Amino acid sequence: MRDETLWWDEERGSLFLVNQTQLPSRYEVVECRNVERLAEAILCLEVRGAPALGVSGGYGVALAARTSTTTSYSQFLEELERQAELLKATRPTAINLSWGIDRVLDRVNRENTLQNAKKAALDEAQRIAWEDADTCVAIGAMGATLLPDGCTVLTHCNAGALACTRWGTALGVIRSAIIMGREIRVIASETRPLLQGARLTAWELARDGISVTVIPDSAAASLMRKGEIDVVLVGADRVTEEVVFNKIGTYMHAVTAHHHQIPFYVAAPLSTFDPVSKEKEVMIEERGEEELRLCGDRIVIPENAGVRNPAFDATPLSLVTGIITEREVFFPPLDIPRILSAQPPL
Amino acid sequence: MRDETLWWDEERGSLFLVNQTQLPSRYEVVECRNVERLAEAILCLEVRGAPALGVSGGYGVALAARTSTTTSYSQFLEELERQAELLKATRPTAINLSWGIDRVLDRVNRENTLQNAKKAALDEAQRIAWEDADTCVAIGAMGATLLPDGCTVLTHCNAGALACTRWGTALGVIRSAIIMGREIRVIASETRPLLQGARLTAWELARDGISVTVIPDSAAASLMRKGEIDVVLVGADRVTEEVVFNKIGTYMHAVTAHHHQIPFYVAAPLSTFDPVSKEKEVMIEERGEEELRLCGDRIVIPENAGVRNPAFDATPLSLVTGIITEREVFFPPLDIPRILSAQPPL
Repeated sequence: MRDETLWWDEERGSLFLVNQTQLPSRYEVVECRNVERLAEAILCLEVRGAPALGVSGGYGVALAARTSTTTSYSQFLEELERQAELLKATRPTAINLSWGIDRVLDRVNRENTLQNAKKAALDEAQRIAWEDADTCVAIGAMGATLLPDGCTVLTHCNAGALACTRWGTALGVIRSAIIMGREIRVIASETRPLLQGARLTAWELARDGISVTVIPDSAAASLMRKGEIDVVLVGADRVTEEVVFNKIGTYMHAVTAHHHQIPFYVAAPLSTFDPVSKEKEVMIEERGEEELRLCGDRIVIPENAGVRNPAFDATPLSLVTGIITEREVFFPPLDIPRILSAQPPL
Repeated sequence: MRDETLWWDEERGSLFLVNQTQLPSRYEVVECRNVERLAEAILCLEVRGAPALGVSGGYGVALAARTSTTTSYSQFLEELERQAELLKATRPTAINLSWGIDRVLDRVNRENTLQNAKKAALDEAQRIAWEDADTCVAIGAMGATLLPDGCTVLTHCNAGALACTRWGTALGVIRSAIIMGREIRVIASETRPLLQGARLTAWELARDGISVTVIPDSAAASLMRKGEIDVVLVGADRVTEEVVFNKIGTYMHAVTAHHHQIPFYVAAPLSTFDPVSKEKEVMIEERGEEELRLCGDRIVIPENAGVRNPAFDATPLSLVTGIITEREVFFPPLDIPRILSAQPPL
C-alpha cells in the first residue's frame, strides 16, 4: 500500500489512483492511460477531494500531451485546450481542478516546440503533486497548535490524505498535532449520501492508529450540546471573500458550532482561494438522485417522491473562526486578492 | 391497503401491524398473536413512532390477557405485570409505550373477576387506539392554521399516519392544512441511519398525493439559508419541562431553524408529556452499530473505527416555537403538571 493517493508511472506513461469508491472494503488501484479514463474516474469519484482534483487536473493535461499524436504544435495546443475543457466540466464546484489544469496549460504555452511542451506538461504536473504534498505538511504545521492536547475534533467528509497527494488538509492538521505529541480523538460525521466520512476518513485514520468514531451527520449537534466536541475542522472546495464552499453538511456543522461557541476551522491550500467569483456565480453540483434513492440495491424512496442531492453548500465566513493555509492562519474577513498577490515567505 | 397502521382482529384475537421495515418496497402486514411477537416487532421497528407505541403497549396487555391460561385471578395479574415489564424494556425513550401499558393495567386492576379483567384489557386497548386517531385529527385542527398557504414545511423522521393509528401528528397537521385548502410542500430529511424520512414519510405523503421531496439530513440548514424552508414541524417521543426528546437530528434542525428565525413546531399528543423526569434521567436508546456499519450488504466503516448510534436527542424548549397538542398549542415555558391536571374541554 503506497503513501500516495495518486502518482505518475514513468514507465507506463500513465496516472495511477487509489480507487476511493472501493474503500474501506478493498484497496484497489486504477490506471488512467488517457484523459477520457481520468474524466470517468473524476465523475464517478474514484478520485475526489479538492487538492487531489487539482493534482489530477495537472496530470490530465500531461496525459493529453503524452497521448497526442499530432506533429503540428498549434494542433497540439488546440487538442490540449479541448481535453482541458472536457476535464473541467466533470466537476464544477471545486476550484482546484481548473486551477491545476490552467497551471499546466500556462506552462505549456510558454514553450516553443512540441517536444519541450510535452516535457513541460509532465514537469509541471509533477511539480503540482510535490507542492501539494509539501503544502499539506505546511498546513499541518500551521494548524496543529490550534488543537489543544486531549481535544476531540469533529470533521466532515474526507479532507485527508485521500483528498490530496498525501497527508491531508484537515486530517493533515490532526496528524501534525499528534506528531507534536498531542492526544487527539476524531469524530467523523458519515457524510451522506456517499459516506466519505465513514468510508474514507475512518479508514485512513484507523489505518494510522488514530482514534476515530463515526456518527450520523445529524448527531453532531447533539454531541456539541453535551460538550463532547471541542473543535470542528473541515476542508474546502473553494474559498471566496464571502463563503467557503465545501461538502454538503459543512454549513450545518458551522451553524451548530457557532451556537455552541465551538471554534470552526477550515484547512485548505491557497490554491482553493478564489479572488473573483461571487457566491451566486459558483455552480453547486447537483448529483444523481440514485445516490439517495438506493441504499445498496434497495429502493428507499418511492418513485413519486422528489429528491434533491446538492453535493456542496456555502458557509459564510462570519461563521468561520480561521482558515488554515500553508502560509498562515487567516482570520476572516479575508482580502483574497491581497493574500494571493503577497510574496510567499522564503 | 388499510387506513390504519395497526388494528385488532376480533376473530383471530390478534394484533395486526403494517410492517414498516418493508416500506416503501412492499406493503406487508404482520400478525402478533402474543406479547413475544409484539416485543420483537417493536424491537426490530416493524412498528415504531411514539403514539403507535402507546397503542401497541395497550394492545400488548390485551394480548397478554387473551393468551393467559391461568384460572387464578392473582396469578393472572402477576402474569400481566411480567409481560408488561418485558414490553416496556423494548424501547426506553418514548414515554407513550409505558403510558399505554400502564393505562390498560390500571383498568384491569380496577376489575374484580378474571372474565371482566380480560374483557376490560381489550376494551381499554381499543379505546386507546380510537382516542389516538381522534387525537391526531384534533392535533391537525389545532396546528393547521400555523402553516401559511404556499409554505414549505421541513419534517424529520416519520411523525405520520405510520407513527400513529392513522392521520399522524406532524404529518396530520400537514394533512389538515391541505384539507383546509392550503397548498403545502413538504421536505423530508431522510433520517439516518434507518431512513424513516425517506422510506416512511415520503411513502405516505406521496401515496396521498402530497408534494414531498427527500433531502440528506445535512442539507436542511443550507436550504434554510436559501430561504427554501418556511416552517419546521416534527413529532416527539417525550416532552418534559426542559426538553423535547425526538429522533436524532431533531436538535440539529432546531438549532439551525433558530439561527434562521424559522418557526420550529412540535406536534405531539398529551400522552407524550412527562411531568416528572429530568433530562438526565431519561435513557437515550443507543442502537446497534450495524445500522451505520452496513449500507445494504456493504461494509462502509472499517472494523477498527468506532461507531455511535444514539436513536434520539433532546431539544431545549427555548428552541421550540410551540407544541401542538390535541387540546391547544402550548408556547414554552410549559407547566406540564398543570397542563396534565387541567380538565380537557368537553
